[in-house]
Amino acid sequence: MPELRKDPIVGRWVIIATERAKRPHDFQGETQPQTLDGDCPFCEGHESNTPPEILAYRERGTSANGPGWRVRVISNRYPALRIEGNLHKRGEGMYDMMAGVGAHEVIIECPKHRISMADLEEENIREVLWAYRDRLVDLKKDTRFVHGMILKNVGAAPGASPEPTHRQLNVTPTVPIPVWEEMTGSLEFANYRGRCIYCDMILQEQNTESRVVLDTEHFTAFCPFASRFPFETWILPKSHSSHFENIPKSSVDDLGTVLKTVLGKIESALHRPPYNYIIHTAPFDHQELAHYHWHIEVIPRLTKVAGFEWGSGFYINPVPPEDAARFLRGA
Amino acid sequence: MPELRKDPIVGRWVIIATERAKRPHDFQGETQPQTLDGDCPFCEGHESNTPPEILAYRERGTSANGPGWRVRVISNRYPALRIEGNLHKRGEGMYDMMAGVGAHEVIIECPKHRISMADLEEENIREVLWAYRDRLVDLKKDTRFVHGMILKNVGAAPGASPEPTHRQLNVTPTVPIPVWEEMTGSLEFANYRGRCIYCDMILQEQNTESRVVLDTEHFTAFCPFASRFPFETWILPKSHSSHFENIPKSSVDDLGTVLKTVLGKIESALHRPPYNYIIHTAPFDHQELAHYHWHIEVIPRLTKVAGFEWGSGFYINPVPPEDAARFLRGA
Repeated sequence: MPELRKDPIVGRWVIIATERAKRPHDFQGETQPQTLDGDCPFCEGHESNTPPEILAYRERGTSANGPGWRVRVISNRYPALRIEGNLHKRGEGMYDMMAGVGAHEVIIECPKHRISMADLEEENIREVLWAYRDRLVDLKKDTRFVHGMILKNVGAAPGASPEPTHRQLNVTPTVPIPVWEEMTGSLEFANYRGRCIYCDMILQEQNTESRVVLDTEHFTAFCPFASRFPFETWILPKSHSSHFENIPKSSVDDLGTVLKTVLGKIESALHRPPYNYIIHTAPFDHQELAHYHWHIEVIPRLTKVAGFEWGSGFYINPVPPEDAARFLRGA
Repeated sequence: MPELRKDPIVGRWVIIATERAKRPHDFQGETQPQTLDGDCPFCEGHESNTPPEILAYRERGTSANGPGWRVRVISNRYPALRIEGNLHKRGEGMYDMMAGVGAHEVIIECPKHRISMADLEEENIREVLWAYRDRLVDLKKDTRFVHGMILKNVGAAPGASPEPTHRQLNVTPTVPIPVWEEMTGSLEFANYRGRCIYCDMILQEQNTESRVVLDTEHFTAFCPFASRFPFETWILPKSHSSHFENIPKSSVDDLGTVLKTVLGKIESALHRPPYNYIIHTAPFDHQELAHYHWHIEVIPRLTKVAGFEWGSGFYINPVPPEDAARFLRGA
């Protein structure tokens, strides 16, 4: 069982993989998993090569773990956290730890070998969004868990075959640091001003216009004022809501279009760069919160995160977000 | 002039390089700077190829910007921040910003083309430590600046020639997020318990023993309980002190030995891996603080920081720190 250990100074939880622990000589060279296109375990027809499905949207009359699905969710074959067992929270002197209990699922976004979500039909993207929501609603019933994060890495390392389009869902017994920082900062703002900082940001971006990439009935997409990375883009629902899983159907319909458009712009403007895509949503153990606002962050990985950024916490962004937004608007 | 912009939610400052702003097509492929060994501008005899020296420890009778130095400090030719000008702090609606004023210096650790600090004589390392201290003392007189961070990346990207051993000193008008988080967390602990959390940690590590790599008169080096990375090693002074620049001479003498030993162990055990090395020290605008404790973090870069870690803030470390420390003790 992996262990979750907390850094007592900054409060960061780390997963220590005690079982599959590596030995020093394991680090001589990193190998990339190779996937051959025709051999992809995620593609339709290869269902027996994956763990059994947890959820699938299927054509009538087809059976579980066979062809005929449109979106399919399975557990990760190499999970960072284990679904079984209790948390066994405990101290070791000044240190805090618990068992590495959590869920690590894979959401396969379409039955064909497509690399990017921008290549999917809008209706397909909407079903992917419903799958996120269904899985979050199901997993939050388990009181061991406090947070679900949906994230995706698009674009493989040089030399590796590109992976088909899928998403990871990580459900954890602690709140991830980036969300915890946002929760803390937005609460401070709300205590001081009595408003949601994200709602204020949406208003200022709409007034300023220069950083807006796309504006629809339910969503606004912009390059944030203090973008860490070139062409970093955030997508926020205009109507305040802290939990992604409470999304109304009309917003899902709109978000399918927004995602296809924004990802398509990034891919065409920047020639299909690798990127990360994360849904930031409030922890399970809160009801709807007035100070937090769920959102999506899309981060193209155009520059290496160098030692300077990583160690100092200062990101150097060579593309002003106003330039990035203008370029993406035109793409 | 670059701009410093603050993310209003989490308080992170980002450097937006408005002058040398890149355009989208600049990202088609990243090129690595190539340095030929015989042609290295940092090596003795090539002083005219660098900006003029700010500080040098020299043999008697040699002149500035010529050969005869043992440690030499110059300004970075491509600084992320500019030394001239005032901060011009201002708001733009809800956002905060200031001019990108700061110092970005390069500390050349020895006159020969050596890649690693572990290859230097202990006496040479001690002079490097004195150079850090002299530069910090000098720069903190400038009231525009609030923090000085010393960091180093050892080991180049594949295909690039290894860079000679040197250090960066970044002096900034804001406190870097990693140090700010440590300052906040350690203050909370001190408010609650009335003690320095780092001093407590040193005691627990010495009692537990399993994570200690090296223990000398003035320093202890250990793999932290919640190590983010395999073989992550921290070096802490045993005697409480918040500011590196207040280091006593006897500690400099000891630290020269400790650094050579610890870096040597990491290099021989892990076959000269790339690594980062950062001195975390308290901001300039505080006197000696009871709750903060300066330290050095050494982070071997054996694994790629994958999307999971980066986005979720959850690091997965496949080597328990107890195993890492045992291995390094034996190296």
